[in-house]
Amino acid sequence: MEFPKDKFSEWYQEVLEQAEVVDNRYPVKGCLVWRPFGFKLRSLIAGYLRQLMEATGHEETLFPALIPEDALKKEEEHVEGFKAEVYWITHGGDTPLDVKLALRPTSETAIYPMFSLWIRSHADMPLRVFQIVNTFRYETKHTRPLIRLREITTFKEAHCAFPDNASAEAQMDLINKAYSEFWDELGIPFLIVKRPEWDKFPGADYTISFDTIMPSGKTLQIATSHNLGTNFSKTFNISFEDKDGNQSRPYITCHGISDRAISSVIAIHGDNRGLVLPPRFAPVQIVIVPIIFRDREEDVISTTRKIHEKLKTKYRVVLDDTNDTPGNKFYKWELKGVPVRIEIGPKDVDSNAVTVVRRDNLHKESIPLDDLVERLDNIIEDITASMKEKARNEFESRLITVSSKEELSAWDGKPVVVKAPVCGDESCAREVEGILNKEFRGTELKKQGKGSCVICGKPARYMGVWSNAY
Amino acid sequence: MEFPKDKFSEWYQEVLEQAEVVDNRYPVKGCLVWRPFGFKLRSLIAGYLRQLMEATGHEETLFPALIPEDALKKEEEHVEGFKAEVYWITHGGDTPLDVKLALRPTSETAIYPMFSLWIRSHADMPLRVFQIVNTFRYETKHTRPLIRLREITTFKEAHCAFPDNASAEAQMDLINKAYSEFWDELGIPFLIVKRPEWDKFPGADYTISFDTIMPSGKTLQIATSHNLGTNFSKTFNISFEDKDGNQSRPYITCHGISDRAISSVIAIHGDNRGLVLPPRFAPVQIVIVPIIFRDREEDVISTTRKIHEKLKTKYRVVLDDTNDTPGNKFYKWELKGVPVRIEIGPKDVDSNAVTVVRRDNLHKESIPLDDLVERLDNIIEDITASMKEKARNEFESRLITVSSKEELSAWDGKPVVVKAPVCGDESCAREVEGILNKEFRGTELKKQGKGSCVICGKPARYMGVWSNAY
Repeated sequence: MEFPKDKFSEWYQEVLEQAEVVDNRYPVKGCLVWRPFGFKLRSLIAGYLRQLMEATGHEETLFPALIPEDALKKEEEHVEGFKAEVYWITHGGDTPLDVKLALRPTSETAIYPMFSLWIRSHADMPLRVFQIVNTFRYETKHTRPLIRLREITTFKEAHCAFPDNASAEAQMDLINKAYSEFWDELGIPFLIVKRPEWDKFPGADYTISFDTIMPSGKTLQIATSHNLGTNFSKTFNISFEDKDGNQSRPYITCHGISDRAISSVIAIHGDNRGLVLPPRFAPVQIVIVPIIFRDREEDVISTTRKIHEKLKTKYRVVLDDTNDTPGNKFYKWELKGVPVRIEIGPKDVDSNAVTVVRRDNLHKESIPLDDLVERLDNIIEDITASMKEKARNEFESRLITVSSKEELSAWDGKPVVVKAPVCGDESCAREVEGILNKEFRGTELKKQGKGSCVICGKPARYMGVWSNAY
Repeated sequence: MEFPKDKFSEWYQEVLEQAEVVDNRYPVKGCLVWRPFGFKLRSLIAGYLRQLMEATGHEETLFPALIPEDALKKEEEHVEGFKAEVYWITHGGDTPLDVKLALRPTSETAIYPMFSLWIRSHADMPLRVFQIVNTFRYETKHTRPLIRLREITTFKEAHCAFPDNASAEAQMDLINKAYSEFWDELGIPFLIVKRPEWDKFPGADYTISFDTIMPSGKTLQIATSHNLGTNFSKTFNISFEDKDGNQSRPYITCHGISDRAISSVIAIHGDNRGLVLPPRFAPVQIVIVPIIFRDREEDVISTTRKIHEKLKTKYRVVLDDTNDTPGNKFYKWELKGVPVRIEIGPKDVDSNAVTVVRRDNLHKESIPLDDLVERLDNIIEDITASMKEKARNEFESRLITVSSKEELSAWDGKPVVVKAPVCGDESCAREVEGILNKEFRGTELKKQGKGSCVICGKPARYMGVWSNAY
């Protein structure tokens, strides 16, 4: 059975279920179950993210999921942005609650009241905390597993406070670097975009977003980073004594990555046989399949066991010695994206070698037992590099740069992302939206537009990005 | 500043806050914030629990927090037991929900509908999954941080299915062993008790509980294990084809440990100076404090740095080179329960030694630098053993065994736990409750009562346990 990836939407749902990443049959729309195999993939990716956050000075914490109505409603723009999506708890048992409780859609309004208790002096900053939690949004749009959920099961949100805007800006740079490292390691290509004023996070001064391109040609926002300025400091009355003894408001930034980290890895690297997982994050890195012939059962089994013992000190290895046929085993572990398969049959035993098959390109070779560990290291390194390159090439093939208005219309409704130089006026960005039938995602960060604005012809200041988006 | 532990309730709240384990000032009753130091302690304890669950064949998963009203209300006894405590979500934004959603108070009704999809044949079992999640209960009793919460932040719940009752009973034994190992490693003494019929988990055939004794003399239920029989299989229509081709109902068991794992470690091991943490679970295992004199700053600092570099490859070590006074540093790290403090001053440098102070007994000794690593291993091992012994002695001192009715009344209202032989009739257990003004917790597991029932004089079958309980 194959999973044709050209029908991406069906492919995605089918592979998620068949590879036992999640079970989407839970009886609440937009909520799903992480199965053991998927949970391990999630843990490996979240573990790496946690490590990156700690290495950049963020400390892990955990804040409550319940937010009192008055705290949530304090920041006007913010509550307006989330109003339609907030789940409200109104009763405990049969008792109506005195104060309605919101189930966190995001945690600014849970965390900043505590910041107001913790921040007294400039010496209390920089304050950098993060948590990895479930958050809840009553989505009215079409839900999609790990992409648009009503319970986001894995929301890494960092919240930071600084004594001045320069430090907050340095934090925005720090996160851009850390997030770039994260996505590079997952082999997920991205654009870094400054969102337009009309599409920024509710309550933010500005919003930076990491967007990747899915096989459908639509963008997926995979990370966001917000400079909230002093907006929330004012709302939650956070202040500190600065070095000169004056009361001042801290600058706050926040930075999020969700379940989409896992969905993008699945969507971008997978193929017609199912998952293709980057070795660093694969729950099973190597599967060993004995190829049994009747009269040679014992020595094949004993060889596979020896190799299993040797490899498992270094890799996450499974020895599949179930009674299934080799063909069914190949199918199963390919579907689960295991980077390397080792086959061992009588011929391999006789020649003191094993057969190694790469999941990414299905290339097969015989490797002498004595060289196995060293060669596996090379193969795994090469798989990682090849997967990144393939993903990068596909990304580039879906990213079109145009320099004139005439070129734009060719891409109307096409499954690509379009970049074009713009002057920076909303009207020009909006006009391009109309021509392309795509949304303006914003302008590429720290990249200047070359030439002139594709609409008005004035000198270009930015590279604009347009796409259909999840 | 000291924290007098004889006023346990105040001690507990004060130490939790001052040691920066949690912040209890969050504006929703029964909800709290894990601060970075506390979060690390929580991670170390939860990590060990996760490891034990995996080693005993349980696979980690993650189920949704939202349970539709009809699923929650399916099991009559179960819903009756949780009815008053369930938080209800009635609205998404301003829109009333078609089906009200419960915020999971526990996950039987979220998980077993999925079991009915996953279990088809006897070959699909044993099925053993677990998750570590937040759960929610609208507690009307007095809330207490980590002991009685409205958001339980750390609920490890395992759910398992078996083809027959013998396998389910073997699972109950497996969990008793694994949990015993867990509590032993934390240095928390416990009784294993079979709860009386009238105090079992709603929907269970029977309930096993692990109870420890807090410094107040009250018991704290720190783990539970339930044999649910086929009750939930029937309710959720879970069935499988057995080896003979007949349709049959699986036996289900479930097993929980919560935030109380952390609260008991804090409560039982702590002293008048604050936390005393078992070395295996201490976020900081060793703190190095340089004792600076004006003319000897450089060589003291360089020595502490060298020692820090050496020790940090093996232990979780902090070098406290802040500008604070040594006295303040001692105070701070004692409060945080760091097992070992290393002081290094000019005299230590001159004699090529360091001063080592144990947190558990405040014993101080000079150790030659050359012996340091080896001696630290011994000291840490000894701290672990001493802490267990001390906890065990205190536990025993609060656990009174009586053999006759006359002895009982001496313990009326006293801060102890009382054990006595009973026949097994409810009326006798209830009569003891009246005499002691303590609750009947149940009967000790796998221990026979000796002599005769303290009430009716018939041959004793069990050892009953009575206490005041959190």
